[in-house]
Amino acid sequence: MLHLIIADSELELVPKEITNHPDVVGYAKRRKKRPEQVILDATYHYRALRRIEDGERRGRPDIVHFCLINALESILNKEGKLRVYVHTRNNKVIYIKPETRIPKNYNRFIGLIEDLFEKKAIPKGLKLLQLKEKPLSVLLEEVGADKTFIMHEDGMQLTPPKFGEVLAQYENPAVIVGGFPHGDFKSSLKGEKISIYRASLTAWAVVSEVLVNYERFALF
Amino acid sequence: MLHLIIADSELELVPKEITNHPDVVGYAKRRKKRPEQVILDATYHYRALRRIEDGERRGRPDIVHFCLINALESILNKEGKLRVYVHTRNNKVIYIKPETRIPKNYNRFIGLIEDLFEKKAIPKGLKLLQLKEKPLSVLLEEVGADKTFIMHEDGMQLTPPKFGEVLAQYENPAVIVGGFPHGDFKSSLKGEKISIYRASLTAWAVVSEVLVNYERFALF
Repeated sequence: MLHLIIADSELELVPKEITNHPDVVGYAKRRKKRPEQVILDATYHYRALRRIEDGERRGRPDIVHFCLINALESILNKEGKLRVYVHTRNNKVIYIKPETRIPKNYNRFIGLIEDLFEKKAIPKGLKLLQLKEKPLSVLLEEVGADKTFIMHEDGMQLTPPKFGEVLAQYENPAVIVGGFPHGDFKSSLKGEKISIYRASLTAWAVVSEVLVNYERFALF
Repeated sequence: MLHLIIADSELELVPKEITNHPDVVGYAKRRKKRPEQVILDATYHYRALRRIEDGERRGRPDIVHFCLINALESILNKEGKLRVYVHTRNNKVIYIKPETRIPKNYNRFIGLIEDLFEKKAIPKGLKLLQLKEKPLSVLLEEVGADKTFIMHEDGMQLTPPKFGEVLAQYENPAVIVGGFPHGDFKSSLKGEKISIYRASLTAWAVVSEVLVNYERFALF
């Protein structure tokens, strides 16, 4: 079983400091929500983001969306060999059941995540998605991987196929991929850093490389 | 060079038959466009879609978005070994230069495509995206692949790694992936049908499997 953790994802509700910003107020109003109920989105809140710490990287739910869309529709997941977790900036963790069908439409995905942040588990009975307060370190303990890899530009250089081969040497490896557009992890991390390419890659490109190259050894 | 063709994509402007439908009129008005200027989107136009042929599969620009996001951010594309084409329902073909940065935000992507359908080439000078009237058969002639594969559930069964190996035996292979949610290709196609999994996969999952498994032989 491969444990995929999208870590330090830039997925959060609009932070208190900017709930009064006119762009945020207008956006929430158009969506018939209160400002504190909406997910921060750099596309629409970029002016407000200039006023807060790390504003140049925050508000990227699209990265989480692409990673989930790739991971959950992968052959590895269909074969029951994948678990996916989304860890976010404010130390929340989203647990996602493998059978979850994430909305393909982005605006519906945002609505779903807003619903999750309010209700902590959706849908009520099935609880396909659950949100818990948890730092990355505690999630990692809980996952109990026999080896943890961190996808990182400064890591040991391995080609993606070679990394797939290395991963498959473990029973329950965990792979951490940063869910942010640039910069470094905010959480302190323990694990082996791996770089699969000499230039930066998007989070979802890394997810596809890791899953598909692992499948080769784990499934076929 | 691998030529990836997303074919019979369900990407089109709202068809004439339903430009008067109240859902379409309201949607266009909210977006400050005329109904005939907006891209058909099943999420918002599902009631109108019930009235037209193939309504249960049309209006899926999200599929094209995910395929492009995966293909253009792939290592294969960064290494200059990939060309991507989007062929659509009404025999239009979108040519995409490899250096194109597709908007990650879905709503911006839709705006971009609407702009492309109007102007036929964007941006004006660079022409990163170009839209031409062209059936799939003519595109295939133009691509001039030494072998054409069609990803199809009824095709010859090969594991994804094995298919990567087969692909790499050709100098300029073309791979056709259906850009629709279910059903079969509408265009008549010539090529070898390949199935990489015993169950159906989304178009973007197939794109990732094909590109990553080809990379292994073409790059590393």
